[in-house]
Amino acid sequence: MEVALAKRAARLSAPAHPDTGDAISFDSGFAFPGIFPDLTEAARRALNEYRSEALQYGPPFGLPEMREWISAYMRNEGADVASEDVLVVNGAKNGLELICRLLAEEGDTVVVTAPMYFTAIPILRSFGLSFLEVRQDDEGLDVDELLEKLEVRRLHGQKVPKFIYDVPDFHNPSGITMSRRRRERLLALAAAFEIPVVEDSPYRVLRFEGLTEPSLKSLDREGIVLALGTFSKLMAPGLRVGWIAGERPLLARMARLKSDGGTCPLTQRIILEFVKDGGLERHLQGARRAYAMHRDHMVAALRRELPDVAFRVPHGGYYLWLEFPEGTDSARVAERAHHIGASVIAGDAFFAGEGADSAKGRGVAKRYIRMAYSHATPEEIDEGVRILAAAYGAAKVAR
Amino acid sequence: MEVALAKRAARLSAPAHPDTGDAISFDSGFAFPGIFPDLTEAARRALNEYRSEALQYGPPFGLPEMREWISAYMRNEGADVASEDVLVVNGAKNGLELICRLLAEEGDTVVVTAPMYFTAIPILRSFGLSFLEVRQDDEGLDVDELLEKLEVRRLHGQKVPKFIYDVPDFHNPSGITMSRRRRERLLALAAAFEIPVVEDSPYRVLRFEGLTEPSLKSLDREGIVLALGTFSKLMAPGLRVGWIAGERPLLARMARLKSDGGTCPLTQRIILEFVKDGGLERHLQGARRAYAMHRDHMVAALRRELPDVAFRVPHGGYYLWLEFPEGTDSARVAERAHHIGASVIAGDAFFAGEGADSAKGRGVAKRYIRMAYSHATPEEIDEGVRILAAAYGAAKVAR
Repeated sequence: MEVALAKRAARLSAPAHPDTGDAISFDSGFAFPGIFPDLTEAARRALNEYRSEALQYGPPFGLPEMREWISAYMRNEGADVASEDVLVVNGAKNGLELICRLLAEEGDTVVVTAPMYFTAIPILRSFGLSFLEVRQDDEGLDVDELLEKLEVRRLHGQKVPKFIYDVPDFHNPSGITMSRRRRERLLALAAAFEIPVVEDSPYRVLRFEGLTEPSLKSLDREGIVLALGTFSKLMAPGLRVGWIAGERPLLARMARLKSDGGTCPLTQRIILEFVKDGGLERHLQGARRAYAMHRDHMVAALRRELPDVAFRVPHGGYYLWLEFPEGTDSARVAERAHHIGASVIAGDAFFAGEGADSAKGRGVAKRYIRMAYSHATPEEIDEGVRILAAAYGAAKVAR
Repeated sequence: MEVALAKRAARLSAPAHPDTGDAISFDSGFAFPGIFPDLTEAARRALNEYRSEALQYGPPFGLPEMREWISAYMRNEGADVASEDVLVVNGAKNGLELICRLLAEEGDTVVVTAPMYFTAIPILRSFGLSFLEVRQDDEGLDVDELLEKLEVRRLHGQKVPKFIYDVPDFHNPSGITMSRRRRERLLALAAAFEIPVVEDSPYRVLRFEGLTEPSLKSLDREGIVLALGTFSKLMAPGLRVGWIAGERPLLARMARLKSDGGTCPLTQRIILEFVKDGGLERHLQGARRAYAMHRDHMVAALRRELPDVAFRVPHGGYYLWLEFPEGTDSARVAERAHHIGASVIAGDAFFAGEGADSAKGRGVAKRYIRMAYSHATPEEIDEGVRILAAAYGAAKVAR
């Protein structure tokens, strides 16, 4: 039988997850398996001392102790967040989905960076949203450009965008961390136009050096920021536990939209039993050390093997954002690299806009490749970067 | 700042979960804590022998071994389901949500029973769906009534409903199991009108006596059934792992809509390590024994304390559906009962339709109360039923 699909579902067509086979993987935001914490004791306690809680339906907003822990964690970062301001969700992506369902209707527009977190693109698109792209510079999202674009929209009588989505710390893919001044200007602009800001900041805890900028939520005086958090980078992605912090009436509505019977109380309790023992700080120290070492290794390999390529050295996170010389077709480089054993993602995937004046439309996106240094070992990084250099060399010759 | 909400989100208003405080709880579909399985060893193995799998992002369709297990489980029930026909989701409610996103648009209609699984009502409503209600008799959903209603819609040029939603085994709340003949007629009708059928059958495994009817999926020759499954009743609700079995192109689209980074691989692996050891059959034997005993206890208590009340004795599942004498206002009885220490849910909550000719509109729904015998102990069942009888007596006097 031919089943009639909803319009949005019928629009989805691109494959969700590239199949990287046995290639060295620089393409995913996977964690380095070498740093996964030992949760055996935490699980033992969760499944015995807390059995009735862990195996029963959980409360829709999350375990009270988990909401407490998250609010303490955010208050520690200067954000004025009580446990009642926290909704526990199935990872930050589930949080973004709930925000879309809460705030946006088919045909609405959202503000995003160019480039942007590429997994968010199909999520936003599946809600029928259009994109208002804004460039970044070294200080993060270009607020002047955003202001100009919002004013043009106003002049043309176009609707105000439904929210601004950004990754202000160790941006994925660009690695840029937004300066404090820029954060304050973004929030002032958002308040003036009454546009909520979605702060998605999974890599914030993975700073290798330098000073932390205040989170957008900690600078939020108007209740304008919905902050997404996750244990994926704090502990391990397999846990699928994250949170949204924001205004209570909004959280209450999102809890109603969250029809999954409450986020898994078992994994919540395992996390709590782990963090209670001080396991988290020890784990994060190890994670920062490992990822800093991976980054340094990849930076050195790139400088050695691909001197043509420009990139910023981020102070944390998972990614390097490579800019190849003009005329490079990164899709071709990526395809060739995959063929000879290393998987990377070509720039086009990170740009949501498709119009003639977008980075993708103008072909500018073709100069970029995102490299995750998180998952591969240092040896794989050396080998994979050599493979990428060979692929680039071959693509240059073919041109 | 006042945030503009999407139309659908702005419509949500009723509280999601009643607060039952310390009252004896007959109102929830909570499991009996006394039967929760010991998953310590399964978790130990998951977190050690399978650490990289359990703590990394999981595959979007679910762990391959989990999809294998589910397909074997369904094939064992006579359904022709390969592992590729299975999408692992965050519980059956998450599955229903994905089906809504896949198949339905704002303003569409879905076929439901009257009464129906009440948690599904806000989910369906949050997608802007309307309800075509169909009665049940002892054999389940009344297919003649459905045919008549579909023909009337066709005569009036109204759109065909987007899917039929039903709980064919130990229906929640009515306890009715659909006969084989009725299942076949429902599928034939659904095929003739090209309406997909969503089979939500969490209680199927909890049969205390009598013979199992074939699942709708096992009778499905047209690929018309989307079967929802869950480990909530197979093992424990806190696991938040369920599945959808259906046609592959539909699953592929739902996997794309499932923007949660894959269902938690840790809980999937814990489940697998438990079922591998034969833990599941032992657990289910204990669960069936406990729930049969709870049911018998509640049936006896009701016959003793509330002889005015009529109900079917279900052969499995969690619920009794009480029909009070004409003129009863069950909301009043429920309120009074809650006040003096026992929580039940009054009939109105289980009817989606609100028109003048609906069970709710005509006031018929007011005669019903749903009683879950799953969660309370036998002693609590005795005491709680006495409380309910007292509340009914008081409401009768007040009338």
